This record gives sequence, structure tokens and C-alpha cells, in this order.
Amino acid sequence: MDALENIKSRRSVNYFDPSQEISDEDIKKILELSALTPSSLNLQPWEIIAVKSSDKKKILRKCAMDQAKVEEASVVFIVIADINACERNIDSVLKSWVELGYMDVKTAVFYKTLPQKLYGEFSSQKRKIFAVKNASFFAMTLMYAARTLGYETHPMDGFDEDAVKKEFGISEEKTIPVLIAVGKLSPSAKLLPRAWRKSVKDFSKIV
Amino acid sequence: MDALENIKSRRSVNYFDPSQEISDEDIKKILELSALTPSSLNLQPWEIIAVKSSDKKKILRKCAMDQAKVEEASVVFIVIADINACERNIDSVLKSWVELGYMDVKTAVFYKTLPQKLYGEFSSQKRKIFAVKNASFFAMTLMYAARTLGYETHPMDGFDEDAVKKEFGISEEKTIPVLIAVGKLSPSAKLLPRAWRKSVKDFSKIV
Repeated sequence: MDALENIKSRRSVNYFDPSQEISDEDIKKILELSALTPSSLNLQPWEIIAVKSSDKKKILRKCAMDQAKVEEASVVFIVIADINACERNIDSVLKSWVELGYMDVKTAVFYKTLPQKLYGEFSSQKRKIFAVKNASFFAMTLMYAARTLGYETHPMDGFDEDAVKKEFGISEEKTIPVLIAVGKLSPSAKLLPRAWRKSVKDFSKIV
Repeated sequence: MDALENIKSRRSVNYFDPSQEISDEDIKKILELSALTPSSLNLQPWEIIAVKSSDKKKILRKCAMDQAKVEEASVVFIVIADINACERNIDSVLKSWVELGYMDVKTAVFYKTLPQKLYGEFSSQKRKIFAVKNASFFAMTLMYAARTLGYETHPMDGFDEDAVKKEFGISEEKTIPVLIAVGKLSPSAKLLPRAWRKSVKDFSKIV
């Protein structure tokens, strides 16, 4: 698939073919590509639960306003924004940067204190925004990555976040910015024309 | 460019060629592609200031920890998350959905109250997360879109948000999740190997 075409022809698909299964191998390929997403200080504050079994999809559907596409999609990715990533990953990030020649050890020592300075203390709103922003970069890449393997997607935010956390064992302090349904377009579905978009002149200016 | 290659070969480039200019036409093309990004209820809570003139880049550099790439890049996009988008855009969204056959008028009337229910009241933290999430989807698409036109990118969050708001006339209540520097790789720059990434098994599970 052409890269321009991937952006132009991506649509949020409402009707998936429920007879289509996805292999664990394809899920892994999609996630490997998505893992190349850039993130703030390379801290990668994302976690994924790929909901694939029909039992778990039934549970997730109940948490998501009973939307049929949760069960009809081949897999639904729960995208989790992890505010713990600063403390958890900074050492791995800096070790890699020193080893690969991005910076010397002295600079790395200074950088160790940067996450708290830039992204706020653990429970701050700033920290939550840091995590949501980067997990959303990941989610957008995932949508494009899935299409390179022949799948369509639908980003969903009509769900009860607390219920999803409870059912899938996700800690309270994390955020779930989006669920992404992934599968093959139902052969009986007809895509409607793309809906309204703001025009470039309405949302931007050049200075 | 191949779509898979666009994801695999994207790198956050630190050294741009300062002699390269970008045309307003190319900026527009990048933004037109980015405008196809999906968003919550299609509300598109994003705004962009494309900082291209050397005067304005100098000002932005001062707000961004004096990072040279702000001036060396051909353009730096200020990505703004707009919490006002619910109220501002819901009528246009619903009008388009009814006209294109997505829903009937009765359903549209019900949907008019959804943004507040799903994304919280105007000043709530939930509303801010709604805006940041969708503006971050936009930002990620922008990075891939720029590459289809032959440009490299760098998402930056080392900047003083309040200073950028003040200098560029952005209202207090909006959020700036990221700046994206866009330009051509400096011919003298050598890309270091890609830094550490979490492995798929470390950040995901299939259920």
C-alpha cells in the first residue's frame, strides 16, 4: 500500500466481518510496527491489551455501550496510557542513548531528572496529559499499521473507562484514551461518503 | 513511499538543513492530509500555527529551551488542542451526518447532547484529555503525511507552554501537546541507530 493512500483511504469502519479471525502473529506484527512510534524522551508510556477471544469481547462490549462492532471486529485493542512510565523506563532510555552515542554519561545523569521537570509529579494533571499524548501517537500509528496488513480500524471512545479497568485488571491511576477495533470490512457494508472536515484555512495559519 | 516503510523508517531528526525552505503549498498539502485524521465524534479539536518566517522561528526557539532545530527546520507546527471544539463543531458534524445518511434527524437531536456527556464539561480534566488525545492523533498523522512529501520530522515537548501561548496569541484554556519541526535532513548529519524500544511482549498481552 502507498503511504499517501494509507492516510487518504483510512476510514473509521462501523461494520466488520464477524467471520474473520486475526492470528496472534498479525497482532504481533501490528504492535511491532506501532512500537516504533516516537514518544516524549522515548519513555513509551503505553500498554496494550488485545481483546480477541469471544468471551472477553462480550465483556468489553458490555463496557462499551453495547456496540456490536466490539464483537464483530477480529480484535479490539485497549490502549492504556501509563503515568508510571517516567520512573519505570528512564534508566533503559538513558542506557540506550549512552550506548548508541546519543549522549555522554554526564549528560545522561542530568537527563535522569528531566521527566519530573517536564511532565510533572506522579499524580499531576500534566503527567496524565504526557501519558495520553504519547499513547495517542501510538494509537494513530496502530491504525495505519493495521491497514498495511489489510485490516480496517475504528477508534472508539464510547466506553465506561472505570468498567474496562475493573474487568481487565488495569490500575486505577492509568488512563484509557481509546479502544481500537480492528478487522476486515463486512462484505455487505457500504461505506458512506467521508463526513465533514474542517478546511485547512479554518484551523490553521502560517506565520 | 510505501506505507510500511513510512512507519519503519520514520525517525525523529535532530539536524535539519537550514538552507531548505518549504512552500506554503507544501504546508497546505501536509495539513490537508492531516485533516483526514479521525476524531471523537468527528469534533476535530485541533488548530495549527505553522511557524515559518525566521522572525517567528527565533521567537519560538526562545520558548523552546533554545533548541537550534526550531530555527534549522523549514517550519515548526504548533499543535493546539481546543477544548472549545465540542460546542463549536457539533452542529457541523451532525448536519453532515444527516445529509450523508449516517443518521436521521431524530438521532442527531439526541447526539447533540453527547459531547458534554462523553467528554465532560468545559473546564473539566476529561475535556482536556479529549482535546489532547485527538490533537495527538492529528500530530501523528502530520508526521507521516510530511514524509510522503519528502520531509523529516521531530515531535518536541521541551518548551514553555505558557510562553508559546503568550507569544502566539493562543487562549489560556487551550493546550499545546506538541511542536513538530519539519524539514529536510541536514546533508552533514548521520542518523544514529534507532534507540531502545520496549518489546511487544513487555507492553502487551492477548486475551
